[in-house]
Amino acid sequence: MSKAWKDYQEKNKDRFLEEMLDLLRIPSVSAKSEHKDDMQRCADAVKNSLLAAGADKAEVMQTDGHPVVYGEKIIDPSKPTVLVYGHYDVQPPEPLELWHSGPFEPVIKDGKIYARGSADDKGQFYMHVKALEIMAKTNSMTTNMKFLIEGEEEVGSPNLAKFVSAHKELLKTDVILISDSSLLSMENPSLDIGMRGLSYIQVEVTGANRDLHSGTYGGAVANPITILAKMIAGIHDKKNHISIPGFYDDVAVPTKEERKLLKKAPYDEEEYKKDLGVEELWGEKGFTTYERTGIRPTLEINGIWGGYTGEGAKTVLPSKAYAKISARLVPNQSSHKITEILLDYFKSVAPPTVTVKAELHHGGEPYMTPIDSKGYLAAAKALKTTFKKKPIPVRGGGSIPICSILEKELGVKIIFMGFGLDNDNLHSPNEKFNLENYYKGIETIPYFHKFFAEEG
Amino acid sequence: MSKAWKDYQEKNKDRFLEEMLDLLRIPSVSAKSEHKDDMQRCADAVKNSLLAAGADKAEVMQTDGHPVVYGEKIIDPSKPTVLVYGHYDVQPPEPLELWHSGPFEPVIKDGKIYARGSADDKGQFYMHVKALEIMAKTNSMTTNMKFLIEGEEEVGSPNLAKFVSAHKELLKTDVILISDSSLLSMENPSLDIGMRGLSYIQVEVTGANRDLHSGTYGGAVANPITILAKMIAGIHDKKNHISIPGFYDDVAVPTKEERKLLKKAPYDEEEYKKDLGVEELWGEKGFTTYERTGIRPTLEINGIWGGYTGEGAKTVLPSKAYAKISARLVPNQSSHKITEILLDYFKSVAPPTVTVKAELHHGGEPYMTPIDSKGYLAAAKALKTTFKKKPIPVRGGGSIPICSILEKELGVKIIFMGFGLDNDNLHSPNEKFNLENYYKGIETIPYFHKFFAEEG
Repeated sequence: MSKAWKDYQEKNKDRFLEEMLDLLRIPSVSAKSEHKDDMQRCADAVKNSLLAAGADKAEVMQTDGHPVVYGEKIIDPSKPTVLVYGHYDVQPPEPLELWHSGPFEPVIKDGKIYARGSADDKGQFYMHVKALEIMAKTNSMTTNMKFLIEGEEEVGSPNLAKFVSAHKELLKTDVILISDSSLLSMENPSLDIGMRGLSYIQVEVTGANRDLHSGTYGGAVANPITILAKMIAGIHDKKNHISIPGFYDDVAVPTKEERKLLKKAPYDEEEYKKDLGVEELWGEKGFTTYERTGIRPTLEINGIWGGYTGEGAKTVLPSKAYAKISARLVPNQSSHKITEILLDYFKSVAPPTVTVKAELHHGGEPYMTPIDSKGYLAAAKALKTTFKKKPIPVRGGGSIPICSILEKELGVKIIFMGFGLDNDNLHSPNEKFNLENYYKGIETIPYFHKFFAEEG
Repeated sequence: MSKAWKDYQEKNKDRFLEEMLDLLRIPSVSAKSEHKDDMQRCADAVKNSLLAAGADKAEVMQTDGHPVVYGEKIIDPSKPTVLVYGHYDVQPPEPLELWHSGPFEPVIKDGKIYARGSADDKGQFYMHVKALEIMAKTNSMTTNMKFLIEGEEEVGSPNLAKFVSAHKELLKTDVILISDSSLLSMENPSLDIGMRGLSYIQVEVTGANRDLHSGTYGGAVANPITILAKMIAGIHDKKNHISIPGFYDDVAVPTKEERKLLKKAPYDEEEYKKDLGVEELWGEKGFTTYERTGIRPTLEINGIWGGYTGEGAKTVLPSKAYAKISARLVPNQSSHKITEILLDYFKSVAPPTVTVKAELHHGGEPYMTPIDSKGYLAAAKALKTTFKKKPIPVRGGGSIPICSILEKELGVKIIFMGFGLDNDNLHSPNEKFNLENYYKGIETIPYFHKFFAEEG
């Protein structure tokens, strides 16, 4: 069987790439309303790709937001079913001036596919579409396959919970498989065993009712930028702990074993700093880099703006200043509770010289998956087969807000089998996905189905 | 004479307005390179308006930046000469979405002229052009008149010092007259006796060498927005004093008399707050509002930006954050020294997790004019004639960076006879200039020349 898979992939590898590049050419930016038509176009393209790969059926299903693509190939209802979750939407490409090539004009350079969405997540979910094709066309499917490819992951999946709840029977599965994360490296394969939760808020600080001349009014009326800066300065103490009251209340203290496990991941601090171009790392005192990005919650300012930001100088005292702020959460924090704590903080520290509006953008709960489930064991075996090395379980720093809801609604565990790398520039200019990783993923996925069927 | 002036103005008032509106239609934004051609076009229009008003000569003179317009009407070299300084450049109009009508499509509404530059300074220097016309056309000039209308005031006059130094003979004068400031109100005419100096800098904070995924890297590498916010939070203490070491070292302590004089200005705190739409004012403890905006130095953040500032959410950990920051200076602070102190502060408080670039945009020294000079007395008499009330001397909060250089190079005092109002929305959306103020200015200026000639 493995030879037939390999031969089929080898024979079709150029087409497998070209098809994925076509998908990358559609600017499916879910955050921006101007891309509404592109979202529909992208959903249609995903649907068609599933049908072409051999799915029995595939359809674009409307939601209150961007559509969901559902597809399936049922070989035998008595066999185990694997539901692949992925997303066809991408992060906004800005700042555009930092891209070396157009974000939606994929370029292959030094074995890397440069485009927005190449790794997150078009390139990764498409590996599953091609794995379906390989197994279907070589008559070697070992499980039923379902696909749930959504268009709102990057904006917090606001409509997916309702969709899943309304289609439980359709989505019924034995395991959920997601490729939307990274490997430690090609030499050190790994499997994520957790995703952090998210609370993403926006804060608006208003001083005077209009922009003012900074000479005429400066010093006599509050500057919302100055006030916002003070609020932000107050969220971390000198040890870079988050100093908002209650923030750490529900954080699960890692066991010695968990900390030991995290230390297994190979880590070269000098290499890490060199890659980022920094002299010194920053972070919460008392924790290692992997702990900071894996088992500890964080609070980052994702954007700030106010006043004059153009060329040259303008002596304005602005009326408003804004910030986009997000916390990454770990077990047993609740996104709902942390959101309230964050909104309260920004409202309560505001002096009476300004007014503050703080609102939730979106959130999601942290998620953990056990390392002894059938799915995890199948994934570990699959990676060992193609990477010739047992994968290390690691805690991912990112978030897939819908995870806890998927598990709750469908009653099964989620397996994170990502094939990206940390330096793929996700959410940043020059996002890339290594060709090698793309092909390795396609090669590995059929083994997951094989081993999962055997475990079952 | 006064009847002839009045009759001429009355007969031509509609044209006086139309001509000014034509000037406002040219988007002469000096800060933005895309308006280079508009700047030249505006300079040509100013030159032509001077010739049409009766100037003997007028010309557009090139500098290393935007051109200067010079014009003159010499009636008798033995008579005193008044040099009018003004500027035809304007502040950038952003944020455009807050304008009720186009910034360069002047609209008259409720007796107010809405357009960028209406009060600052096209509408104000044009009063002098029309005053020239009135006196020239009624054969009643009492002084020689010179005009120096520059195109770089809003960007700190980087090329004017060199120009003035190179044309001392051409610009030779007995007094410099500037209308680029405000009256307390139409009921309480006032004359500015000081302008604050300026140090305008830009700060760039860099963390990692590229934008990062806030889930993968957040908590492990410095966020430049967080660091910049901490830097900004550190510039004011709890009493809103500026806490940067050395900032107040050279500030002249106001005498009891000066503070008493400032109290003469009518001030209704409730009205002031209501106009600005704030519950509480903000400012340095121990000083009144007029002291804060007049005799005390201030430090304002004019703009801040970094990360994602678009619609929706993006979970990015940005590589860079920026701020535009300016200090208003009072005697005896030196712009050069304060600029060094500011640049040093931002560089020295930077932790080793980031790199900081801090650079000067532009600066200018504070300026004071005595209240017993011939020019001041002539201006006070002129205002008393048309407003029927003796003007109050006040300390202006704004800056005209070139003042100290003009006085030094030309060896004469500057008189600030502005006809705007504090609520003209200078540097803000919906800048306006009241029609009443425009016409009152045109009516008042000829008296200045008359009284100045008599004093001489």
